Amino acid sequence: MSVLEDLAMAVGPKHVLAGEAAKDDYHHDESLTVPAVCPLAVVLPGSTEELSGVLAAASRHRVAVTARGSGTGMSGACTPVDGGIVVSFERMSRIIEIDQANHVAVVQAGVQLDQLDSALAPLGLMYPVYPGEYSASLGGNVATNAGGMRAVRYGVTRHQVVGIRCGGKVAKLSSGYDLTQLIAGSEGTLALVTLAYLRLYPRPAFNATLLAPFSTLEAVAAAVPTVVGSGIGPSILEYVDMLTMAAMTAHSGIDLGVADEIRSTALAYLVVGLEARSETRLEEDAEAMAELLAKAGAMEVYVLPPGSAVQLIEAREKAFWVAKANGADDVLDVVVPRAAIPAFMAAVAEVASSTGSLLPGCGHAGDGNVHLAVFQPDPETRHEVERRVFEAGLTLGGAISGEHGIGRAKRDLFLELEDPAKVELMRRLKAAFDPLGILNPGVTL
Amino acid sequence: MSVLEDLAMAVGPKHVLAGEAAKDDYHHDESLTVPAVCPLAVVLPGSTEELSGVLAAASRHRVAVTARGSGTGMSGACTPVDGGIVVSFERMSRIIEIDQANHVAVVQAGVQLDQLDSALAPLGLMYPVYPGEYSASLGGNVATNAGGMRAVRYGVTRHQVVGIRCGGKVAKLSSGYDLTQLIAGSEGTLALVTLAYLRLYPRPAFNATLLAPFSTLEAVAAAVPTVVGSGIGPSILEYVDMLTMAAMTAHSGIDLGVADEIRSTALAYLVVGLEARSETRLEEDAEAMAELLAKAGAMEVYVLPPGSAVQLIEAREKAFWVAKANGADDVLDVVVPRAAIPAFMAAVAEVASSTGSLLPGCGHAGDGNVHLAVFQPDPETRHEVERRVFEAGLTLGGAISGEHGIGRAKRDLFLELEDPAKVELMRRLKAAFDPLGILNPGVTL
Repeated sequence: MSVLEDLAMAVGPKHVLAGEAAKDDYHHDESLTVPAVCPLAVVLPGSTEELSGVLAAASRHRVAVTARGSGTGMSGACTPVDGGIVVSFERMSRIIEIDQANHVAVVQAGVQLDQLDSALAPLGLMYPVYPGEYSASLGGNVATNAGGMRAVRYGVTRHQVVGIRCGGKVAKLSSGYDLTQLIAGSEGTLALVTLAYLRLYPRPAFNATLLAPFSTLEAVAAAVPTVVGSGIGPSILEYVDMLTMAAMTAHSGIDLGVADEIRSTALAYLVVGLEARSETRLEEDAEAMAELLAKAGAMEVYVLPPGSAVQLIEAREKAFWVAKANGADDVLDVVVPRAAIPAFMAAVAEVASSTGSLLPGCGHAGDGNVHLAVFQPDPETRHEVERRVFEAGLTLGGAISGEHGIGRAKRDLFLELEDPAKVELMRRLKAAFDPLGILNPGVTL
Repeated sequence: MSVLEDLAMAVGPKHVLAGEAAKDDYHHDESLTVPAVCPLAVVLPGSTEELSGVLAAASRHRVAVTARGSGTGMSGACTPVDGGIVVSFERMSRIIEIDQANHVAVVQAGVQLDQLDSALAPLGLMYPVYPGEYSASLGGNVATNAGGMRAVRYGVTRHQVVGIRCGGKVAKLSSGYDLTQLIAGSEGTLALVTLAYLRLYPRPAFNATLLAPFSTLEAVAAAVPTVVGSGIGPSILEYVDMLTMAAMTAHSGIDLGVADEIRSTALAYLVVGLEARSETRLEEDAEAMAELLAKAGAMEVYVLPPGSAVQLIEAREKAFWVAKANGADDVLDVVVPRAAIPAFMAAVAEVASSTGSLLPGCGHAGDGNVHLAVFQPDPETRHEVERRVFEAGLTLGGAISGEHGIGRAKRDLFLELEDPAKVELMRRLKAAFDPLGILNPGVTL
């Protein structure tokens, strides 16, 4: 039996898309550097049982398997292997349960963030991970350990996933190895996630957004530990540099009410989100935060009206698209200890000037997660730029990626820069899960 | 060269304790059921380099290696193997760094919780995991993924460990498999933890403790989801059943001011800890919580004076010792989804009555983590009791242990009740780390 026939046996012929039917969308994700690849077929399982059949067929034929959610990833982890198959979860997109008593949602891998949010909002609950793209799937978020702006308060996907078949609705467990945590962030190289148990939180009733321009990026970065240490517990703590802010506001047409003389001299901004259970507390917190930011050297502190606040957060979430529209050649998301942001940014400035590149950025300052757009059209120079930026992050005790993952995009530099003993151990772990090496070969390892 | 000579080469002869020098304390932990074993030797490395030498020697001689912190574990995970060695971390007990800007402590494995707390308190910081025994070591806490009362707000050890050599001071990362999370909770079977990077938090300025008696255990359990869902965010949420409360107060001589007519009819208590940044907020929260508890059916709500509150929390932390002093034969810590506590406790009552056992308890209600003392002297009947209690927990979507770990104490029942496919995968993962099988054989797997 041919591979395609075998796959058709597992999921039914109309759920195996080959040739023309395996549309362009399935050939890539949002990475700016990983080339699109047309797979042998796109397979759409409707259940875990059907997926088991697909994996059995792939094992028999030694065909590479790449899992795909909504394709909103940034590192090519769902870009297919030539001759391999894509497993797409669009038929497994059911919210199985929202368990209000245990604050747990049980979702199939193909459920999208906006779909889950629509179901949670009427119940006064929320799932706190917003990686900037609401059409992202939960399966993809688990596979890449997605982050986003609210991680400074709630943590990243890893902190919300309490189970994926293994695990479950329990708040904690110490019963054998934590396979859930090992699989989270493994980018489809160890297992395919079909079902996730996710922690839910009470939806905060009141929100405010503060915007604080600073005269230098160093001043912004220096303010961050003070904000985190204050105990006020911001839900968002983002920095945006001048270039990125200008591009963002121009692209979305927001007027944030920042006075001209400040806008022309501010080199960076801090965006601080606050949330509270009562209006009084929110006001108190906003006042305390404004005072603290002023003391930390903000040129001014604006409490944004709700409309502009929403626009600014949306614009920040779309910063990647602005960078892309402006012709960025790549996007990085190095993470460093948050107090090391100034040192890291100094290193980045040095790399930019010495290579004639432009590296504007913004990022999750509270997490030390710096997003840089790379404007450097020459591939060799760009490789050099990225290697030096990654090295600077690693030297400061950081890592190559805080939330985008390694995928195919950063695999070479990951293998070049990572401790070889750790890479060897990772390979042994992969072999324990995937002895045939058919799960997303060429991703991460 | 003999094993002992080889070990002496690695750490110096005076740091290899054999025969009489390997004192009784090294033969066991606090498990009530795992028999003490005298090891071939106790080895005290002074650095990671020395430990590497120890492991190389153990590999050459195929000698089992058991890591030991303070020996406060509850499942025999640091009880030696006959003929094996114990690696004890008392010479590696230095706080390397308290990084205030990044809210991270870097500690050697032998650092004790009370030692870390003394260093943090003057800085207005805290490490939030208190597994009831302040002499516990951080290395041991990481190895067992220790929990404790504050997990309902802050999470367990797993949520605080951002690195153990691998990883580091970063708030998140998505760069390869998360080895830190795999090793956390692996009870010394995959690797020895020498150094941990731990998240720190602002030390809350104001605390209050509420005590609410309920007429039934079911009523207590039913109140828990309401408390968690309120958004007030308690830092402690414990239930204590009547028998345990009576034993605890008698043992520590506290007078909680509970009226006689209530004490004689209350079958269970909820203990709620609150913390806040200001006195006003604490008072508001305490009032809101008291109202909520009253609505949920509390017979009365007491806001404890600071002295009694401290005594009660300490008594709760010592509940294990009270059970032991009263002759308990074992202690379990099953975890279930928190809304399933009533169903679980009903099953426990059924097991108790049908086997003529006494199973009083208390536990981390907010986490669904139920601690049961087992009074059943007959080993065979006790095995049956524990099997049925574990099965009840697993059927409700829970796990055998929420924080004590599997160790040697619950290994047989773990292997009997756990999914064989998961056990097989765990064995392959262990082989990837420990191909010779010398790391804590007989623990967990």
